[in-house]
Amino acid sequence: MSEFVHVAVDAMGGDNAPEEIIKGTVNALNACPNLKVTLAGQEAVVKAELDKLSYPADRVTILNCTEVIEMAEPPVDAIRTKKDSSIVKGLRLVKDGECDAFVTAGSTGAALAGGQLLVGRIKGIERPPLAPLIPSAKGPVLLIDCGANMDPRASMLLQFAQMGSIYMRNMTGIEKPRVGLVNVGTEEEKGNALAKEAHQLLKDCPDINFVGNIEARDIPAGVVDVAVTDAFTGNAILKTYEGVASMILHELKGALMKTLISKLGALLIKPSLKGMIKTFDATEYGGAPMLGLKGLVVKTHGNSKAAEIQHALEQCITFKEKKINDLFRSEMKLDELAAARRAASKKTEN
Amino acid sequence: MSEFVHVAVDAMGGDNAPEEIIKGTVNALNACPNLKVTLAGQEAVVKAELDKLSYPADRVTILNCTEVIEMAEPPVDAIRTKKDSSIVKGLRLVKDGECDAFVTAGSTGAALAGGQLLVGRIKGIERPPLAPLIPSAKGPVLLIDCGANMDPRASMLLQFAQMGSIYMRNMTGIEKPRVGLVNVGTEEEKGNALAKEAHQLLKDCPDINFVGNIEARDIPAGVVDVAVTDAFTGNAILKTYEGVASMILHELKGALMKTLISKLGALLIKPSLKGMIKTFDATEYGGAPMLGLKGLVVKTHGNSKAAEIQHALEQCITFKEKKINDLFRSEMKLDELAAARRAASKKTEN
Repeated sequence: MSEFVHVAVDAMGGDNAPEEIIKGTVNALNACPNLKVTLAGQEAVVKAELDKLSYPADRVTILNCTEVIEMAEPPVDAIRTKKDSSIVKGLRLVKDGECDAFVTAGSTGAALAGGQLLVGRIKGIERPPLAPLIPSAKGPVLLIDCGANMDPRASMLLQFAQMGSIYMRNMTGIEKPRVGLVNVGTEEEKGNALAKEAHQLLKDCPDINFVGNIEARDIPAGVVDVAVTDAFTGNAILKTYEGVASMILHELKGALMKTLISKLGALLIKPSLKGMIKTFDATEYGGAPMLGLKGLVVKTHGNSKAAEIQHALEQCITFKEKKINDLFRSEMKLDELAAARRAASKKTEN
Repeated sequence: MSEFVHVAVDAMGGDNAPEEIIKGTVNALNACPNLKVTLAGQEAVVKAELDKLSYPADRVTILNCTEVIEMAEPPVDAIRTKKDSSIVKGLRLVKDGECDAFVTAGSTGAALAGGQLLVGRIKGIERPPLAPLIPSAKGPVLLIDCGANMDPRASMLLQFAQMGSIYMRNMTGIEKPRVGLVNVGTEEEKGNALAKEAHQLLKDCPDINFVGNIEARDIPAGVVDVAVTDAFTGNAILKTYEGVASMILHELKGALMKTLISKLGALLIKPSLKGMIKTFDATEYGGAPMLGLKGLVVKTHGNSKAAEIQHALEQCITFKEKKINDLFRSEMKLDELAAARRAASKKTEN
């Protein structure tokens, strides 16, 4: 049997915690014999949920946490003060090497801040991006970054492109993931200062299959596998995506329920519609990885149900089995990068 | 009868030119007795299209133009070299005060560059934004800016908020348009450097009904009437909007046509669906105004049909009748702003 993958799970995070989180975890445990889990949360509550289910007790540990970080709390403060929360204690397990990954449906801000402050970056990585997989007409697209890097340098976008490319190649099996830079038009000279500078760096990088600038509409069309952008723009794209899809599906439902005849029609199209809606179901992908950390942190939707948690845990297994962090180090030459940076900063000091 | 409103129309711009452009123009002329139009384009072609229709000949002039600016041409070069194009000649009519407005379905870049270079800004306006109306669950939302200001200063975003607010109040009759700043979260301290600075300026501006930061998903939900952002983010939102809506409607169509039974269902829901799709039909709004110019420039979709052109022309009439540029000058105290700026720059010189 292959080596165990040990994942810490935030049992208290998200709208459906702890019930759906624990259900998803147990489903993953039953499906994956090489998965071990530490459930971070209020021990009695977690225990009570576990007792409702049938699970392999030898691969489950409960880590008692008395505090909870709320969604609206200022993330950095929360990470610093709530030392007995499930997020802080879960991330510490990754930092200490006891766990390979941490999965949470809780506060995105706390997960991002904690990932950087507690787990820490791989040497040579400038900033870790948060990279959700979003649905397109031709399969999932990795939108990188939607995280904390609001005013990144162009060199960070280059690293996002490299990490995204390695991630997609190994997680989805696409041999040469198509990488696009989100911009206002396809011409090279277009964009804001950041996009113009990043375009040149991406164009000159031999390690990625850079297809050039893309417009945001190319993401739902599935023109690329990896869409590179700053976190501010990435967030706007992700939230517009969710908002427009939810508005249209809501209006569609309204239209179908409008008259007796349309209700009859709705019954007839129901099976076809279900298949279509599944195409757009981002929960199938199992959350957004935060890449470039010494370990893996996966943030799932706040309203995650069991299926998304299970898929997030399966993602952690593949991530470790494919040794993706080692690939980041070797393919991006991160040790050399870090050494060069140290030398450059020493030179400045002298 | 009220004063004439004289609009120059680019007869050659867009995928459906000249046929749909001229049809829409004639429809507007027949609907609005105080509209006069100059059609800029190849005279023989324009004449041939006009001859197919019944129109008030005394309110139509043809301005012969021998050149056409293509969609992919570098805009500034095109404006400088193609002096006999419909865009350059149409914009010149506005600059010279012969026309009140210019409508084009042609190159957005050329319209934006030409608006700035040929028509020019109102004194005191830092940069003219392009502001499309986009559909939401609760009516149109003005997304300002989606234009040429890729790296704006925060003070420009304040002017976008003020112009957007005045525009929406007068064009749609909403008394106190709700203005939101596009950001990654609603908390004040969130965002990139630009959003943080702009938030303070908008909060301190007594002339607008600032509801605070919004997330991009609040736009389709219709939480605001005016969504303020930089052109890079605005473009990403607009293109995601179009891309996701088109992807979903395409998949929906596929689902409906999948089986014999779903086809029957589709027939039954057709009337209800039509009403729903109309809700999202941005062509109803009649294009995106470029605000803050000495005159009005309206950019319609590249694939505009007659209805959008007609609505764009009607927008020009309301814009003039409501004296919106005068309101910009008085309510935003643009003369004082310009004088203060002149004084400040003189001080720097001495």
